[in-house]
Amino acid sequence: MKFGGTSMAGTERIRRVANIVRAQAAGSGDKGASEVAVVVSAMAGETDRLVNFCREANALYDPAEYDVVVSSGEQVTSGLLALTLQSLGCRARSWLGWQMPVETTAAHAKARIESIDAPDMVESMSKGEIAVVPGFQGVTENGRISTLGRGGSDTSAVAVAAAVKADRCDIYTDVDGVYTTDPRIVAKARKLKAVTYEEMLELASVGAKVLQTRSVGLAMKEGVRIQVLSSFVGEDAVAADQLPGTLIVSDEEMDQLVEDGLMERQHVTGIAHDKNEAKIILTRVPDKPGAVAHIFEPLADASINVDMIIQNVGRDKGETDVTFTVPQADLPRAQAMLEDRRGDIGFNRIITDSKIAKISVVGVGMKSHAGVASTMFRSLSDRGINIQAISTSEIKISVMIDEDETELAVRVLHTAYGLDAAD
Amino acid sequence: MKFGGTSMAGTERIRRVANIVRAQAAGSGDKGASEVAVVVSAMAGETDRLVNFCREANALYDPAEYDVVVSSGEQVTSGLLALTLQSLGCRARSWLGWQMPVETTAAHAKARIESIDAPDMVESMSKGEIAVVPGFQGVTENGRISTLGRGGSDTSAVAVAAAVKADRCDIYTDVDGVYTTDPRIVAKARKLKAVTYEEMLELASVGAKVLQTRSVGLAMKEGVRIQVLSSFVGEDAVAADQLPGTLIVSDEEMDQLVEDGLMERQHVTGIAHDKNEAKIILTRVPDKPGAVAHIFEPLADASINVDMIIQNVGRDKGETDVTFTVPQADLPRAQAMLEDRRGDIGFNRIITDSKIAKISVVGVGMKSHAGVASTMFRSLSDRGINIQAISTSEIKISVMIDEDETELAVRVLHTAYGLDAAD
Repeated sequence: MKFGGTSMAGTERIRRVANIVRAQAAGSGDKGASEVAVVVSAMAGETDRLVNFCREANALYDPAEYDVVVSSGEQVTSGLLALTLQSLGCRARSWLGWQMPVETTAAHAKARIESIDAPDMVESMSKGEIAVVPGFQGVTENGRISTLGRGGSDTSAVAVAAAVKADRCDIYTDVDGVYTTDPRIVAKARKLKAVTYEEMLELASVGAKVLQTRSVGLAMKEGVRIQVLSSFVGEDAVAADQLPGTLIVSDEEMDQLVEDGLMERQHVTGIAHDKNEAKIILTRVPDKPGAVAHIFEPLADASINVDMIIQNVGRDKGETDVTFTVPQADLPRAQAMLEDRRGDIGFNRIITDSKIAKISVVGVGMKSHAGVASTMFRSLSDRGINIQAISTSEIKISVMIDEDETELAVRVLHTAYGLDAAD
Repeated sequence: MKFGGTSMAGTERIRRVANIVRAQAAGSGDKGASEVAVVVSAMAGETDRLVNFCREANALYDPAEYDVVVSSGEQVTSGLLALTLQSLGCRARSWLGWQMPVETTAAHAKARIESIDAPDMVESMSKGEIAVVPGFQGVTENGRISTLGRGGSDTSAVAVAAAVKADRCDIYTDVDGVYTTDPRIVAKARKLKAVTYEEMLELASVGAKVLQTRSVGLAMKEGVRIQVLSSFVGEDAVAADQLPGTLIVSDEEMDQLVEDGLMERQHVTGIAHDKNEAKIILTRVPDKPGAVAHIFEPLADASINVDMIIQNVGRDKGETDVTFTVPQADLPRAQAMLEDRRGDIGFNRIITDSKIAKISVVGVGMKSHAGVASTMFRSLSDRGINIQAISTSEIKISVMIDEDETELAVRVLHTAYGLDAAD
């Protein structure tokens, strides 16, 4: 079980979390007791407070000491949740990153979990003691505290679930599951009973920010079944081990769910949108072998993620316009880098535009079904929405459009693929 | 060097601390560079905030989890001080209790340090890296975080000083040294250049709360020289290694200081007062062997510290009144315990009085000088102050008086022993 910062903000809310944990541990009806590990975030706002202290102390902070400071937020909430569980009559104890231990790389402030070897914790859980684990933190080979970077608690939860061979990793959050699209845009969006890891990765990477992308990748690699659900769920539903949220599972389990009639197979599972990309056009780039490498190699070296790429036929022979997208936050850096290499690349002008949006239709069903792309293009064209670029993967088709048309495009596609909920 | 919570309250103040630490590490003039370890408290108010969280979570909190929560305050300030020192161009790193490690007993929330074996830290210091150590915390044999109880950071500082074989343990606080008496009572109180461990223990245990008593005892045992000084000291004085505060040293070093003409030997070093005791009178206790043991054994078993004891001759033959003092905070518990054992003890009434004060004159000089006691009794009697009880040790004479006469008695004695500063 994993609870985020909003759920842990203050002793009142921690008590509600403890009641949910107790219900899961105790079970009810046919559902017997469960061994439970709980991963917690810092109280909402606390990590920001600690990060600000670090900035005030030293603008160019040493990430190793930054980790010492910011990891304390989760240390506090894990101790408090253990105390609260005890006050409800449960046996519980905290296991800090260096105690389990959660071994990570030495890349402080953005470490990656390498392994979790927690025989003592597993033994303690097998004796009925609830394990409370601070998310976001680990320990390096040198015995120093490390953190995984902001939002790392989801990844901690999946890693702990893998380490204890959990049946499931339940991620409690402020939404009650994964929807066919953003319900703030489409009132008829439906909550999905299940999605596959790959679908979730595509939905997450294009803006449906329910889970940290890295945590989904890890779950897929380790075969950890995730449920995303609301922290306002009823304790009875938890005790009975009902599944009120959205399961994130392997292709095989999804096939089984369809076979068992628990899920209906759709060609398209969901529609995602992303307004955080920016478009760069380089005009009159020499149309010769190697020219494109001059553009994209330095961007890759600087860890700037290039997404869509289109090469237009230029006005003059032997020249071409190259269009691509980068995250808006990286736009100034990308632009400066390209200007620096103007001589090598040999372009005429840089044109940038951050008023674009990327709309994606996602679904494992489209692998075996032609016609998904043509439905997309026709529906958008019928409403006069201009497609500036297209990219595809096995389970996703994305188009770049004018940012102002985002909501319209999402609604049109949601209807076109038959995703609207019945009235 | 040790800095308390007021000195660490916020990044502005931590910067002032960092400047003092840098001055000590760098040195000036004849005084070369020093290897420095700094022990820090949590930001003022932070430990209270964390303790309150624990109380809200679970009134009967598990001290092991309490320690996980409250130790985070010092973790934060040690990381922040390391960062701030780095921003001033110093090399610095934090060493948490479990990293050094500071091994303690398993008595969570009131652990005692058993040993500090810190070869890595000593090596790092020898290479010019400033060690920043969170006070108050350690680690048990089972690898769990422990804390030493409130005010334990002074003890941490002395223990670290002993472990690294420090020349001196400088404890920075909100007073600029140890005075002949409380300057709020006697305007002519003088700051002492030096006191012995034993004097400091007597002064501390009777209410001169500059240092935690346990830290002084540890310093005496380990032979750690302490300096108490103000955190508002000038950086130049620190860099030149002047000694603006009060040294706390062994008898031998004190003799040397007197021989060198740096200190004047006084019969009485200081006057302390303590209003936190309460008096208990048990009337008509059978005057027979073993009766007194029935009173004091159960109190000792319950860790209630009995200080002064007087046995009065009773009105009737074969009976006596027994008077003694206990800390005010323990009065209700002591009273209940005595009532429980009324049958065994066989007293008539319990009379209690918390409006008493204990006034003590302290000085190693009185060992070799008669007449100190008679000066005390005569001076108080001349001013009409009634002495209710007397207790003595080799270097201390204490009297119990009415609480309302505390300030008057302190002033009278300060003058009588020639301690008043010249105008």
